[in-house]
Amino acid sequence: MQSTEQPRLAPRARAVEPFHVMRLLERAKTLEAEGRSIIHLEVGEPDFPTPEPILAAARAALEDGAVHYTPAAGLPQLRERLSRYYAERYGASVEADRILITPGASGAIQLVFQALLEPGDEVLICDPSYPCYRQVLRLLGVEPRAVAVDADDDFQLSAARAEAAWSPRVRALIVASPANPSGTLLGREQLAELHALCRARGAALIVDEIYQGLVYDAPDHSALELAEDVYVINSFSKYFGMTGWRLGWLAAPQAAVEVMERMAQNLFIAPNTPAQHAALAAFAPATLEILERRRACFRERRDALLDGLRRLGFGIDGEPKGAFYLYARLPDWVGVDSMQFATTMLEEVGVAATPGHDFGCHGAERHVRFAYTCDLPVIDEALGRIDRFLVQCRSR
Amino acid sequence: MQSTEQPRLAPRARAVEPFHVMRLLERAKTLEAEGRSIIHLEVGEPDFPTPEPILAAARAALEDGAVHYTPAAGLPQLRERLSRYYAERYGASVEADRILITPGASGAIQLVFQALLEPGDEVLICDPSYPCYRQVLRLLGVEPRAVAVDADDDFQLSAARAEAAWSPRVRALIVASPANPSGTLLGREQLAELHALCRARGAALIVDEIYQGLVYDAPDHSALELAEDVYVINSFSKYFGMTGWRLGWLAAPQAAVEVMERMAQNLFIAPNTPAQHAALAAFAPATLEILERRRACFRERRDALLDGLRRLGFGIDGEPKGAFYLYARLPDWVGVDSMQFATTMLEEVGVAATPGHDFGCHGAERHVRFAYTCDLPVIDEALGRIDRFLVQCRSR
Ligand SMILES: Cc1ncc(COP(=O)(O)O)c(C=O)c1O
Ligand SMILES: Cc1ncc(COP(=O)(O)O)c(C=O)c1O
Repeated sequence: MQSTEQPRLAPRARAVEPFHVMRLLERAKTLEAEGRSIIHLEVGEPDFPTPEPILAAARAALEDGAVHYTPAAGLPQLRERLSRYYAERYGASVEADRILITPGASGAIQLVFQALLEPGDEVLICDPSYPCYRQVLRLLGVEPRAVAVDADDDFQLSAARAEAAWSPRVRALIVASPANPSGTLLGREQLAELHALCRARGAALIVDEIYQGLVYDAPDHSALELAEDVYVINSFSKYFGMTGWRLGWLAAPQAAVEVMERMAQNLFIAPNTPAQHAALAAFAPATLEILERRRACFRERRDALLDGLRRLGFGIDGEPKGAFYLYARLPDWVGVDSMQFATTMLEEVGVAATPGHDFGCHGAERHVRFAYTCDLPVIDEALGRIDRFLVQCRSR
Repeated sequence: MQSTEQPRLAPRARAVEPFHVMRLLERAKTLEAEGRSIIHLEVGEPDFPTPEPILAAARAALEDGAVHYTPAAGLPQLRERLSRYYAERYGASVEADRILITPGASGAIQLVFQALLEPGDEVLICDPSYPCYRQVLRLLGVEPRAVAVDADDDFQLSAARAEAAWSPRVRALIVASPANPSGTLLGREQLAELHALCRARGAALIVDEIYQGLVYDAPDHSALELAEDVYVINSFSKYFGMTGWRLGWLAAPQAAVEVMERMAQNLFIAPNTPAQHAALAAFAPATLEILERRRACFRERRDALLDGLRRLGFGIDGEPKGAFYLYARLPDWVGVDSMQFATTMLEEVGVAATPGHDFGCHGAERHVRFAYTCDLPVIDEALGRIDRFLVQCRSR
């Protein structure tokens, strides 16, 4: 018995947009299957494997039979460990019971959005920014109020811009530092101003610190140094090299934790158990040593890619000091939209990058995101190919 | 800088109810810390560890570096394997691309609810039923329309009852077979009637089959044998013994899959990678042999607990033929509410069980859920203690 009718999906669900990069990825796979060499500068995760001490902890956990549900907020010892990490690395006092372990930063985003927002509310977000914010907000009937940010602002939101964009329905503001897609940081003072503004207006400040630790030539901060009443999203995915383990966390004000814990019970039951045990090894000196070496490596790659792209005529005026992305303005003489640029670049020279359209509307047609999640020689090869591609573009 | 103000949480978030069993669990832990022996008949997960072939596959996956993000819908080979499982075990034709791998059945529930429903919609659910349905629906601004079901109905929803409870806003109906908390099954014909009703009314039929495979003295079905336009929730948690791995799936009508995949990208990014590789071994003959032995074991325990509780005067009139729960009516002469009954039983004889209030309102005060997720000798010991407790109750 086959149904011929279309299922009645919720309009909001139908409105969730596909990522443009997915279409490029499909095409890249096809080309690869045909034997073409493709360089992936679109990948939003470290190419490094999970550090060995974390893997060893995972193996030990499996050996010990750590395969049952944990408490909804996560293993107490992991929450304690994170609390210590904040104290030791950032001098921030974050009590363990203010930290909820979640299924990735993705789970933390769901938790914080659903805890704070109701349909009809609005949230200030940067344009460009991580695409899931917008999509998840809209699924909840919440309107993302996009504020255009530019290279002049380091692609970050200033209190002045936030204030100018404010509406009576704004209930929260979300920023990321280091940011996706630009890799730029939010200065401490700028963050303090945003915090003051949010407090004055009775809105929540949400800071996505998923790229924390991946910072180059700049001091590493946490918004938790600032105040107790910020909501900080984080994850073991990026700095700790654990994307596939789906483990993140949320630091919340004490008074919000009980409600969020109840929500987590219902939404997730609990985060992944072996992953939580594995993550206990994320802070061991042996692990941090590996991670710091990787950080040095990312810095070298950033320097190479930043220099190279600038030499080729891309505009990267902001100061991309973190994450593993560069958000590059197409050379002025390139007469095509970034979507078409990325598509053609993939076809002609086999370099994949993410068109700006995935991150918003503002200037999207002029920007492409390059990720430096591959080795230096590959970056060099990519730069050579892009150079060739630009020559072809010019000669048309 | 400490905030003295209460955070402005969404009223819906504040309205999420705690599970009563959590308070009992806290108390049980305290008693255990004081040296008391506590028998846990409240635990909703198998006591068995994850089967060794699945663990071996997980170890191999870690060895192979399977630690990066997978596609949002899950590993293609796992979706293929599930498709074959439906064909081989249930004679049901479910194409691989209709199966989305999710972070537990919990993730599947979020996905299906958010895909189908908008605020103001209503969903028919059984009272009693799994508590998270209600809570997650309310978080989405959707009203769960509870239909009282009794032992006479095997605690399952009939088409007649569903029809009587219908409202113009009902957009979906969710049932579980085997059910939590009653362990009862939904007959094939009854399911077909519900399906016909939903189809006639343009509503979606959602069937939670998370306890599939854990069925005793009865044939094992899937709603997917019936039609393509049902939404089936399932998980590796229970039958496959993988609770802590947070891996489930959703089978959906073809025409709904694309939207759901986009949603999954935004809500989850992807399910846990090592867990997915591990789950590929869930269908190996060696695993299924272990699982079938466990099933025989669960059956013995059910028989022992069912007989024992009935002998003690508990009313279990339905036919609990699946899962690992018995939903028992307190003996008529017990003059207290099930919440107080469970609390006192824990204090006086150290047996923990879940009060009916966690599953709804209807008859909740007269029912307690006992889980047979512990060994036979422990069940015997528990029955002895409950007997003593009842004698004490009587003598008051
Ligand atoms: C800014 C930002 N936040 C959150 C996430 C979610 O990551 P995860 O769920 O793996 O922790 C990502 C992933 O790319 C991201 O770029
Ligand atoms: C009926 C029912 N559905 C869904 C779930 C969610 O389980 P999981 O997310 O571990 O797959 C449970 C867990 O107890 C359940 O009892």
